[in-house]
Amino acid sequence: MTDAAIQDRFYPDNRCFGCGGANPDGLHLKSFDRGDALVAEWIAEPRFQGPPGVVNGGLMAVPMDCHGTWAAMLALGAADAGDPVPAVTAGYSVRLLAPTPVDRPVTLRAQVTACEGRKAKVTVTASVDGVTTATFDGAFVRVDGQVATTP
Amino acid sequence: MTDAAIQDRFYPDNRCFGCGGANPDGLHLKSFDRGDALVAEWIAEPRFQGPPGVVNGGLMAVPMDCHGTWAAMLALGAADAGDPVPAVTAGYSVRLLAPTPVDRPVTLRAQVTACEGRKAKVTVTASVDGVTTATFDGAFVRVDGQVATTP
Repeated sequence: MTDAAIQDRFYPDNRCFGCGGANPDGLHLKSFDRGDALVAEWIAEPRFQGPPGVVNGGLMAVPMDCHGTWAAMLALGAADAGDPVPAVTAGYSVRLLAPTPVDRPVTLRAQVTACEGRKAKVTVTASVDGVTTATFDGAFVRVDGQVATTP
Repeated sequence: MTDAAIQDRFYPDNRCFGCGGANPDGLHLKSFDRGDALVAEWIAEPRFQGPPGVVNGGLMAVPMDCHGTWAAMLALGAADAGDPVPAVTAGYSVRLLAPTPVDRPVTLRAQVTACEGRKAKVTVTASVDGVTTATFDGAFVRVDGQVATTP
């Protein structure tokens, strides 16, 4: 059992804006398998604000979608008793329940709600100090490929 | 009648990541009133990729949400025969229909589908060479304030 982030274990040279360790301008999301959920902690830099001091509402989808994609890729791979498999996002819905502040730790928790055939559904919550500020419901589809190259 | 972008006319010192002209790290979205729709053209820099050469799926929500927010703020203000009024996003759904390439012009078109009281709904389409690559359906709520300070 390793405590390395999923992204560092399976795709260290990824240049994805949300979760690529090799994208110097990105969010560098790091997701960890905590058994009952995939969990990440993320702090939004002030450049990602919409209203002053509050994370841009569209930008909230970036870490939530990447985190959800990794949860889907892990689940779709596990269904074959293997490593994560490539999957892409078909669509998602985001509810913005309260302002998410910049410069504060945001906890993302992903849970797979469906996984069958080539499709998976994942719910992600974002919370700050225990208060849920946003929810994300995404639909993901497995694509061809041998490693997780399309988060 | 001016052909200046809505953002430059009403909120030139905005630091929003999506549509703030004063955010050096942002997308600098510029939206224009074309009568039947609010229209923007946006080119994603390569730093915004998810899979190689393709815009990050979560990041697609940034210009679509900002563009939709401005359409809502214009509509809510026009309902009072005035300038745009502040509004925030309550939630949105995004469908990713086809990969949106980086480094290519993406046309965003927003249409207000409902505007009543303090609430508005807006649909935004993203298209490349006439092919719709993503759709966005957002719900927006007017907030107190005298100018459009919360796109």
